[in-house]
Amino acid sequence: MNIQINHKQEIPDSYLNISYYLNKYLHELPEPPLDPKTKQPIGPDALARLFPQELIRQEVTLEEFVPIPEEVQELYKMYRPTPLLRARRLEKVLGTPARIYFKYEGVSPVGSHKLNTALAQAYYNKKEGVRMLTTETGAGQWGSALALACKLFDMKCKVFMVKSSYAQKPYRKTVMHLYGAEVTASPSRETKSGTAFLLKDSKTTGSLGMAISEAVEVAATTEGAHYALGSVLNHVLLHQTIIGQEAKLQLMKEDVVPDVVIGCCGGGSNLAGISFPFLADKLSGKRNALRVVAVEPKACPSLTCGEYRYDSGDSAGMTPLMKMYTVGSDFVPPAIHAGGLRYHGDSPLISFLYHKKLIEAAAFSQQQCFRAAEIFAQAEGIIPAPESSHAIAQVISEAARAKKEGKRTVILFNLSGHGLLDLGAYEEFLQGGLYT
Amino acid sequence: MNIQINHKQEIPDSYLNISYYLNKYLHELPEPPLDPKTKQPIGPDALARLFPQELIRQEVTLEEFVPIPEEVQELYKMYRPTPLLRARRLEKVLGTPARIYFKYEGVSPVGSHKLNTALAQAYYNKKEGVRMLTTETGAGQWGSALALACKLFDMKCKVFMVKSSYAQKPYRKTVMHLYGAEVTASPSRETKSGTAFLLKDSKTTGSLGMAISEAVEVAATTEGAHYALGSVLNHVLLHQTIIGQEAKLQLMKEDVVPDVVIGCCGGGSNLAGISFPFLADKLSGKRNALRVVAVEPKACPSLTCGEYRYDSGDSAGMTPLMKMYTVGSDFVPPAIHAGGLRYHGDSPLISFLYHKKLIEAAAFSQQQCFRAAEIFAQAEGIIPAPESSHAIAQVISEAARAKKEGKRTVILFNLSGHGLLDLGAYEEFLQGGLYT
Repeated sequence: MNIQINHKQEIPDSYLNISYYLNKYLHELPEPPLDPKTKQPIGPDALARLFPQELIRQEVTLEEFVPIPEEVQELYKMYRPTPLLRARRLEKVLGTPARIYFKYEGVSPVGSHKLNTALAQAYYNKKEGVRMLTTETGAGQWGSALALACKLFDMKCKVFMVKSSYAQKPYRKTVMHLYGAEVTASPSRETKSGTAFLLKDSKTTGSLGMAISEAVEVAATTEGAHYALGSVLNHVLLHQTIIGQEAKLQLMKEDVVPDVVIGCCGGGSNLAGISFPFLADKLSGKRNALRVVAVEPKACPSLTCGEYRYDSGDSAGMTPLMKMYTVGSDFVPPAIHAGGLRYHGDSPLISFLYHKKLIEAAAFSQQQCFRAAEIFAQAEGIIPAPESSHAIAQVISEAARAKKEGKRTVILFNLSGHGLLDLGAYEEFLQGGLYT
Repeated sequence: MNIQINHKQEIPDSYLNISYYLNKYLHELPEPPLDPKTKQPIGPDALARLFPQELIRQEVTLEEFVPIPEEVQELYKMYRPTPLLRARRLEKVLGTPARIYFKYEGVSPVGSHKLNTALAQAYYNKKEGVRMLTTETGAGQWGSALALACKLFDMKCKVFMVKSSYAQKPYRKTVMHLYGAEVTASPSRETKSGTAFLLKDSKTTGSLGMAISEAVEVAATTEGAHYALGSVLNHVLLHQTIIGQEAKLQLMKEDVVPDVVIGCCGGGSNLAGISFPFLADKLSGKRNALRVVAVEPKACPSLTCGEYRYDSGDSAGMTPLMKMYTVGSDFVPPAIHAGGLRYHGDSPLISFLYHKKLIEAAAFSQQQCFRAAEIFAQAEGIIPAPESSHAIAQVISEAARAKKEGKRTVILFNLSGHGLLDLGAYEEFLQGGLYT
């Protein structure tokens, strides 16, 4: 019961590295990032201006486990292990024989899984003497997480928040302020790249790609500053694997293994977090039948409608080129409320796994997702983040399939965050104002 | 780790009844409620129009434990046992030798302890065939809790929300809507009592007392409807004792016993919840040195500045008269953000304990409380509800005292809820706009 204090051993002490399994069992790894100018693979040096050495090392390591520093483990006890719950009332409402489990990351103080990597990134940066971190944020979940992590490690934090979310979700800004961070609506006139975006379209709603450009520019030009990314990169996905490791242990106690693992997918970090520890078993041949489904918005369908090619991680072309499914780094998605899923590409690891048909993908409309969230909230009480509602839409579809086939399918999904700071969107939905 | 599933036994299976201990060890009980017309003690019959038989029985029972129905225990597993955390970073920031523990009730899907009694009340009403519950709500935490409980037991829910909070906290309304409840700003023209309040002062910000009058009126005049109260009554405080029972077990594993137990106090339910299981030990002579502190807003100082006398529970004089500390049932407190503490009186049990000097009381200004909340959020990550921030203000004062005296005082407080739906108030505070 006293989980934070007495069950230390049940919080994982290492991150699990999917690249180890890809290398060992598939004998193949995602193609490396390229320098945007030379088109040659970039070396660690090129990243050193933005990231601490240890994170650059984690980006390419092939070891199976990366130990979690003690200080970070200590901070995880604030909210970990997160609960694994069975959605029995949802099962009943859906009339399905499927057994639906979810891992609830919304119990973190910032309300989502993002704190898992924020704490680790802040720690490694602090250790190398960094005094300030810059970042982008969509809906504000990543920005809040990094703001808190920086406060806990006594560093400055500067967040570029995508303009459409800045207006839709004013309270996320307050959260970041309360944690002592500086928040700027992006694109802004504070940076060269932001000014250029505004020159091109002064009314733009912004995008994660643009906000990344601004944050990278400030980090690269400020003494003592580094940049931190909330998804996409290998080390970010690595840190999130504590979700799936915990879930695996928790399901083991229930004596079940999942048939299908589901997560919403923007950059891919929460999906990676819940699924990689299970995919490791699939790769090593222990669990061949396992399915993993990435769920994205129809409004920004990088996996389901994008191309698999090298593309820039940001809109100004400042980041390395990454091999990924992309709808184009200059794509500005409609201002849907799932701000965290408004990213033009997917992480190279998720993209590679999808390309190799090791994971599947599905896409839903905003209206479908909010309806799924409403059904879930009325059955289970928890109000999901608009991002997480995408996973629920897929869960409902899998549950219907199980009903049709009369199978007791075990579904596991990641409820990556709560929607308590997205209630404006819910109000709009309840009033019938969301059609997209 | 898998608390919801494997640690069933760590969620209490009974509510603990403080009246048993008062009767057995103090040989004295709070004076009974009186009929507002005859001024004679009211019998169970007078309450039967509003409450189910089992709750009326719980109001007066002298048994030590009241078993929790299995269906309710099952629902508690959604979020119980709630975490007990040590605020080590807060201790460090305060430079105190005190050990600060808190029980975090904000992990409930509605974000506060209120669901503990809402589930029980909805259950007992449903069992007796009730089809609709009416209630009042201040900040909206109780209203959200009852809305969800009614949805889970398939009953209608009608909430009268105090007008000042209705305007300050629009998202709480959305939460209640999402759970399917009907929400009306109080005072309203829907009821006779509401109309009378508006006639007296058309610009009133409302009060819990007025909202109670309206909810009671609708329940009394609607077929199949009952009324549910979120605090004050004995059975409500009884249901909350699962908080303190869990905390006791959790602290036992840490091998500590609290020297002082702290909770904010409006009607008194969260304070009762955390403290009664410890007070039971004090009454039975096991823990004589224990202190309990009720913390209230200076803007509505019923314990610290009120009188101990019979007063009405609502503003229209519809409820029984209760012996309590009160600032007067017609008192309209300033529109502070801690809407849950804007009640003119305190529960008869809390009032009796305070009168007997078994508990202490303290009061803080809104500004002091938000400052305490900011310190807490920056140290521990969690953003407290404005109500709960009152407890934190007292914790900080106790920690300073421990520092002065060089004592390793063990402080336990109830973090009754999170403040994620009160961020408008935090923004105001951060902008320097809260002076009261």
